[in-house]
Amino acid sequence: MERTKVALLGSGFIADIHIESYQRFVPEAEVVAVYARDINKAKAFAQKHHIPNWYDSVDDIISKSGCEVVDICLPNFLHAQTTLKAARAKKHVIIEKPLAVTLEEADEMIKVCAEQKVNLMYAEELCFAPKYERVRHLVKEGAVGELFMLKQAEKHSGPHTDWFYDVDLAGGGVLMDMGCHAFGWFFWMLNNARVKSVTASMSTVLHSPRTKGEDNSIVIVEFENGVTAVAENSWAKHGGMDDRCEVYGKAGVVYADLFLGNAALAYSKNGYGYAMEKADTTAGWSFPIFEEAFNQGYPHELKHFIDCVRTGQPPLVTGKLGRDVLEVIYAAYASAGQGKKIELPFKAQVKKPVDLWLK
Amino acid sequence: MERTKVALLGSGFIADIHIESYQRFVPEAEVVAVYARDINKAKAFAQKHHIPNWYDSVDDIISKSGCEVVDICLPNFLHAQTTLKAARAKKHVIIEKPLAVTLEEADEMIKVCAEQKVNLMYAEELCFAPKYERVRHLVKEGAVGELFMLKQAEKHSGPHTDWFYDVDLAGGGVLMDMGCHAFGWFFWMLNNARVKSVTASMSTVLHSPRTKGEDNSIVIVEFENGVTAVAENSWAKHGGMDDRCEVYGKAGVVYADLFLGNAALAYSKNGYGYAMEKADTTAGWSFPIFEEAFNQGYPHELKHFIDCVRTGQPPLVTGKLGRDVLEVIYAAYASAGQGKKIELPFKAQVKKPVDLWLK
Amino acid sequence: MERTKVALLGSGFIADIHIESYQRFVPEAEVVAVYARDINKAKAFAQKHHIPNWYDSVDDIISKSGCEVVDICLPNFLHAQTTLKAARAKKHVIIEKPLAVTLEEADEMIKVCAEQKVNLMYAEELCFAPKYERVRHLVKEGAVGELFMLKQAEKHSGPHTDWFYDVDLAGGGVLMDMGCHAFGWFFWMLNNARVKSVTASMSTVLHSPRTKGEDNSIVIVEFENGVTAVAENSWAKHGGMDDRCEVYGKAGVVYADLFLGNAALAYSKNGYGYAMEKADTTAGWSFPIFEEAFNQGYPHELKHFIDCVRTGQPPLVTGKLGRDVLEVIYAAYASAGQGKKIELPFKAQVKKPVDLWLK
Amino acid sequence: MERTKVALLGSGFIADIHIESYQRFVPEAEVVAVYARDINKAKAFAQKHHIPNWYDSVDDIISKSGCEVVDICLPNFLHAQTTLKAARAKKHVIIEKPLAVTLEEADEMIKVCAEQKVNLMYAEELCFAPKYERVRHLVKEGAVGELFMLKQAEKHSGPHTDWFYDVDLAGGGVLMDMGCHAFGWFFWMLNNARVKSVTASMSTVLHSPRTKGEDNSIVIVEFENGVTAVAENSWAKHGGMDDRCEVYGKAGVVYADLFLGNAALAYSKNGYGYAMEKADTTAGWSFPIFEEAFNQGYPHELKHFIDCVRTGQPPLVTGKLGRDVLEVIYAAYASAGQGKKIELPFKAQVKKPVDLWLK
Repeated sequence: MERTKVALLGSGFIADIHIESYQRFVPEAEVVAVYARDINKAKAFAQKHHIPNWYDSVDDIISKSGCEVVDICLPNFLHAQTTLKAARAKKHVIIEKPLAVTLEEADEMIKVCAEQKVNLMYAEELCFAPKYERVRHLVKEGAVGELFMLKQAEKHSGPHTDWFYDVDLAGGGVLMDMGCHAFGWFFWMLNNARVKSVTASMSTVLHSPRTKGEDNSIVIVEFENGVTAVAENSWAKHGGMDDRCEVYGKAGVVYADLFLGNAALAYSKNGYGYAMEKADTTAGWSFPIFEEAFNQGYPHELKHFIDCVRTGQPPLVTGKLGRDVLEVIYAAYASAGQGKKIELPFKAQVKKPVDLWLK
Repeated sequence: MERTKVALLGSGFIADIHIESYQRFVPEAEVVAVYARDINKAKAFAQKHHIPNWYDSVDDIISKSGCEVVDICLPNFLHAQTTLKAARAKKHVIIEKPLAVTLEEADEMIKVCAEQKVNLMYAEELCFAPKYERVRHLVKEGAVGELFMLKQAEKHSGPHTDWFYDVDLAGGGVLMDMGCHAFGWFFWMLNNARVKSVTASMSTVLHSPRTKGEDNSIVIVEFENGVTAVAENSWAKHGGMDDRCEVYGKAGVVYADLFLGNAALAYSKNGYGYAMEKADTTAGWSFPIFEEAFNQGYPHELKHFIDCVRTGQPPLVTGKLGRDVLEVIYAAYASAGQGKKIELPFKAQVKKPVDLWLK
Repeated sequence: MERTKVALLGSGFIADIHIESYQRFVPEAEVVAVYARDINKAKAFAQKHHIPNWYDSVDDIISKSGCEVVDICLPNFLHAQTTLKAARAKKHVIIEKPLAVTLEEADEMIKVCAEQKVNLMYAEELCFAPKYERVRHLVKEGAVGELFMLKQAEKHSGPHTDWFYDVDLAGGGVLMDMGCHAFGWFFWMLNNARVKSVTASMSTVLHSPRTKGEDNSIVIVEFENGVTAVAENSWAKHGGMDDRCEVYGKAGVVYADLFLGNAALAYSKNGYGYAMEKADTTAGWSFPIFEEAFNQGYPHELKHFIDCVRTGQPPLVTGKLGRDVLEVIYAAYASAGQGKKIELPFKAQVKKPVDLWLK
Repeated sequence: MERTKVALLGSGFIADIHIESYQRFVPEAEVVAVYARDINKAKAFAQKHHIPNWYDSVDDIISKSGCEVVDICLPNFLHAQTTLKAARAKKHVIIEKPLAVTLEEADEMIKVCAEQKVNLMYAEELCFAPKYERVRHLVKEGAVGELFMLKQAEKHSGPHTDWFYDVDLAGGGVLMDMGCHAFGWFFWMLNNARVKSVTASMSTVLHSPRTKGEDNSIVIVEFENGVTAVAENSWAKHGGMDDRCEVYGKAGVVYADLFLGNAALAYSKNGYGYAMEKADTTAGWSFPIFEEAFNQGYPHELKHFIDCVRTGQPPLVTGKLGRDVLEVIYAAYASAGQGKKIELPFKAQVKKPVDLWLK
């Protein structure tokens, strides 16, 4: 079997998850090279994961590594320019969330990838998380009847890396970082139903000296099909990652909890190494999760993308979804800024989404 | 011990809970009479519960039963007029939620009770529910640090009695029926902090032929102290009662679930009698709750009210809270109607709150 | 209402629970006096709880306090002699578990109480714990069909008081302390079905320098009706009290958890005052329980006993049950000692049950 | 990459799980042929799963399919003879639990595989189930201190296939079918510690007309290192598969639940397709599990075995473990039959283990 060659851009938290997913679960893919800004970091990552080549130049890894797919695990502000470079070099693109910082960037990424006939594959792993997918399939089987409300929450105590807190690099706060998941999943659950309006409440409650961005937000999305959706996102929630959904239909409900709901339950007088993402402590009661990457759907997602590249079938999750998510984020910031419901379609000329709230 | 004489007005679902609470847990009180519109219902209720007298006239039960306290478990549209009659007869008043249909009624109830020097005791049982109170005390001890977000949800598949669905009698839909609890509990948790703004999304998803009122709502309340609160209320949620809260502080979180979180877990091939309020079925898996009235705090609430009457100390939960809750309800309907955030204080001249949404 | 006069003997952990239960939930009872070995402790307890009289003589409290009921919350080795004194003074007796240290004591207690025509009321609160009672009623309704297996577990990290660890005073270890609950509840669930055999495994795993008694045990009880029951008891389990049951029938199952299953779920960076019985810490994740005495059934139990005294009806839980439980405990120690199944009826001449294991 | 060729023997429930595991998660393996007694079943299975060859002769599939590994998913009574054939043909063997029906068979299987220098890989998937492995690693990190008790339970309402109920073909009832898992996992958790004694209670409560074997059992295993272990196994438990473990150490506890504890929670008025293994119904509340094979560890197990074949490293789980498990099963039946604790090592000359109980 000839394997599909992937260049991995980035060597941080999410790059770790991608490399684990490829190597354990996607045998059709071969990660042939890794890029990091710091060549020593790139080399260390490559050696740790038995990747044959490493680079500190984006241009070089794209042109010289022999890759067919560029998998972009870089900070938000680099998403657009890197995607454009890869696409113009005729490489398929896997792009982590959010798709881009601005709608203009998003539109150009979609346009250029289409022109270059490469896939723009938007890595929303909740569309593949096996427990969430179980929920979606139940709903499709009619288990809860016609939907009328969706809720999705993702919360922890804040990112470990500095650029997330710099709104000029990230484009916003927790909504840019984690709101993407909720909005992407809403579209996924509702077959890309169109949004009617967005209403948001935001605040900076825990990290205010460190960031101008919001670290807590509630967003209500009303869809044209009558479904109401609620996204809760926070960087101010202690005790480890929280990732939950609730689905309400006229004939039933389904709840799913990816972290506490998949974990063992431990009581340790002395603590131990690691419980789950962002858990502060392991002494006392804790919820040790297992197969963390698998349970969030990364292997399923990357396998699907590599399959698409190999077979030519169109990916189920594309730049279109990422662009729609970004539009909801714009509308959410505008709603929080103006204190009113924002109707979609919505467009605004800003340098970054959070400007619609911060002003 | 001389017991405090209570006249109970109403013989429905909530009257059952009050009489159980008095008789099992409030020995200082004696229910001396019951009123129902239908004298046969009144008599049957009285005989079942060993209440010596029964009436089908509100005036009579107030004037003739020898009561010191009138406990009003009647439909919403009767709250104001019954309270005024009781107060003018110098009886203390226990009034079920919501306090009244309109703000004008609420204001008059408060004024007249003050003039007559009787207590207007607002029966928000979540202020007494022992699990919720446990949460509140944790917070006061500093367990989660400074609060920044509260959530409270109350959901089931819809009331059993017709008048709830008639907005002219009820004043609105699920928000009038169950939103009261969320808003009352927010004020209670936050020491009557002042509300800055209210934003709401509402819809009628399940009971649309039967009611013009909303049967599903999400309300965001922003407080002046920086706390954001989210109330979720639904008459469209199957599988039994759902009553949950989440408390977010800068140093931790607390979650509490009054029904699934206090129940046993049963699997029955054939089913059995009763699992919990509004459970459709007991076959298959079910969550049988126990001591349902106690776990919701009714005994604690009524004991406190009777203690207040006996000792002269002021009740902790009064018409003031009920009035503040009603103002939030007004603002929520207005927000859903106008598609924007409504700032408080808010007042509007309407026959009933839901008119601000229905127009 | 004339209240029934109770003398409370003891001022420790369990006496606290009894006094709270009487004063909040059993208005028909009046605790008129308290006894403690140390008069200062007795006085402090009395003053804290507004009890008018206190004693440091068992004879005096029985003869001089004017009580009708003696409620014995003393260490195991005092159960028999105190019961006999009370019965001979024509007082009804409420006796905490275990009924006695030896079967001979138990038999004499039952005989003397019968002769004196006073109630010997055995305070097995699991027969009244509302969640467990909910389970029992489900079973009686046929929810799970014919029973074939029961499990009950009670575990924590060990008692706070020294005498529990002294087998000469306690008669044994965790089985004497907490195994009582399991065996008593089995009889209760099975309508006093007869035991066919008992098999036990015991060890001293955590408290071995401090006690010769077992601190961990597993006991299998086979009943003549074909039901198998498993009791798990431990003084070596960290993380707070664990009290759970499982009921297996030919048409279903029911599970109930009195502590984790009734608690809120909190995450606290700094900790707070108290989570539940025997919880070591409140920092990190914890399970704060609420209404701890009520949820274990103490008020329901004591109310039933006082009702029996007032009405003359026979108590549902008597010395007979306590004696049957003690026989199972004897058999369990003998089984652990001899490494074989012990058939009932079983009798042995020993100073204390644990001798059958320790030898 | 040259793939390792596997012949799959069997086309039932467990063969489905193995083929899914190989094809999704073990790219180093290639299933080249399938055997079933009925050639049409073999062909249908092969075509469904894109397996190139199918056989109805064990000899043929071993000699003609070109396989390096024979994976035996056949009924218990065929385990020994098939293993011997494969080993003598120099094929590595993957054998589903239980290793064999008798200890004599087990001993010969181990001997012949050793002589032929092929791996005898015992497919105890609980040694690989990711949640259970998470628990084991916590323990190794010292999270709960020194162990003193293990519990493991596996329960459902009975197998779908007839031969399980025929003790002549299966060797016993639920203990042969599911007790293997508990005992294998105990040895795994305790680094193959030696067993001191076994005590068991068994009964036939639900399937008595259909089987002479036990369908409910409790087994206590005392290890020489002082650890007590309790295995609960049942074919009489309704409501879907139950697979749980509890680990008790001197400094903490860990609990893990593979089914209810990994599932979403759904309420469906109308039901839907499938919730989990052995769930009777999906109407009402249900616990839909996801990635069922993965969560039970089959992919991890088979990947490990194939890795061993490819690299020559010794498998971690071998016929030795399966033989030790079978010895405990023998002792358990003897204990239930004789009503006493059985000390190990234990041997008996019987045609099948259950004879030690049935007599």
